[in-house]
Amino acid sequence: MSAGQRPGGRSARVRAAVLTATRALLVDGYTGLTVERIAQAAGVNKTSVYRRWTDLEGVLGDLLSEYASEVVPIPDTGDLDTDLEELALLIRRGMAGEPGELLTALAAAVPHNPRAAQIVRGFFAERFGLAEAVVNHAVARGELPQDTDARAAIEVLGAPFFLRLLVVDEPIDEEFARRTAAAVAAALRSGVFSRAREPHPVTGADAEHSAVGDASCSPAS
Amino acid sequence: MSAGQRPGGRSARVRAAVLTATRALLVDGYTGLTVERIAQAAGVNKTSVYRRWTDLEGVLGDLLSEYASEVVPIPDTGDLDTDLEELALLIRRGMAGEPGELLTALAAAVPHNPRAAQIVRGFFAERFGLAEAVVNHAVARGELPQDTDARAAIEVLGAPFFLRLLVVDEPIDEEFARRTAAAVAAALRSGVFSRAREPHPVTGADAEHSAVGDASCSPAS
Repeated sequence: MSAGQRPGGRSARVRAAVLTATRALLVDGYTGLTVERIAQAAGVNKTSVYRRWTDLEGVLGDLLSEYASEVVPIPDTGDLDTDLEELALLIRRGMAGEPGELLTALAAAVPHNPRAAQIVRGFFAERFGLAEAVVNHAVARGELPQDTDARAAIEVLGAPFFLRLLVVDEPIDEEFARRTAAAVAAALRSGVFSRAREPHPVTGADAEHSAVGDASCSPAS
Repeated sequence: MSAGQRPGGRSARVRAAVLTATRALLVDGYTGLTVERIAQAAGVNKTSVYRRWTDLEGVLGDLLSEYASEVVPIPDTGDLDTDLEELALLIRRGMAGEPGELLTALAAAVPHNPRAAQIVRGFFAERFGLAEAVVNHAVARGELPQDTDARAAIEVLGAPFFLRLLVVDEPIDEEFARRTAAAVAAALRSGVFSRAREPHPVTGADAEHSAVGDASCSPAS
């Protein structure tokens, strides 16, 4: 073994070359991306790619796992609204870039590729799990009911981004992120995500009473 | 032309046979569904299918357009909470069945099939457009601010269903539908979907005040 070459060195170089090439190709989007093009751009034999990653989704999943392993600074400012808004802006930035392309590509493979399904589900589960802290901190501060279902709230926060990423042809801009965060904050405060919530938390009469939301609690606003 | 055979009769029969066969095959899900299998089950030549629908997504899109053309009874009970809940239960029933399978299949094709993208976007745009009535009726009744963005609210209502359909491995059950509807109702009432909304509708102090949501407005509840 020559100097500077560790065990697994070639394997690690192949992986780095393939992931770097995939990254570069993804700039043009997922359409037309193939194992052949990746192998060519990486300067490796396509059989090496198939042997190691099985298929395109395997390569994309490996790339997504790189993102999943990055440390994400979950907002913790001591204020639920600010935390949720910063979280939404983080999701926006993530989806606007390469992870968004990867999620789009892998989500597309979910219905017919069990491994892609596992990767995407794992990614969402891991990210949602981290993001729950924002809600749980507010519960700990007494801002929200003790039995708040943090996972359910985070799911509603993340879902509109996913819908826009995959289907709805509208920009995922800052205003969209802020509004989605504010919607989840309002829902959390109303007790909707409390596990003990009544099926109809607001009756018709109450509904008229609270027509302008929290403003009805404070005539000055 | 023999009795009972109208112009376009054969074409209409081929279409009916292909769509019926696709429907039957979709019961087993999207995985493994091909034009070849559909043609075989329909008893038609696969080249006839390719000529008419171009590809699998073309067939699925045609089937989805059948659903899109069905008259959907948009809830109009005179109460926003009830309307949103019934709407959510309608979405749930739709996604639990064949339209859910179709949407899953077509959404998977969106990133690499422009026609599938167009079909799915058209379907969502059409359904969201109909559902907006629920919000607009509440605006007309004075329950919500005049400048409420109905489309934005309906998007947040529909998104969690789509996320579960495609990615999150949790059931789309009635409780999930009701909670999602209640979350959007609470967000609507808080003014989040008002086009003139401030970036931070609730300050930290107000947040503590309204920690238990509407309950803080009415000590009796």
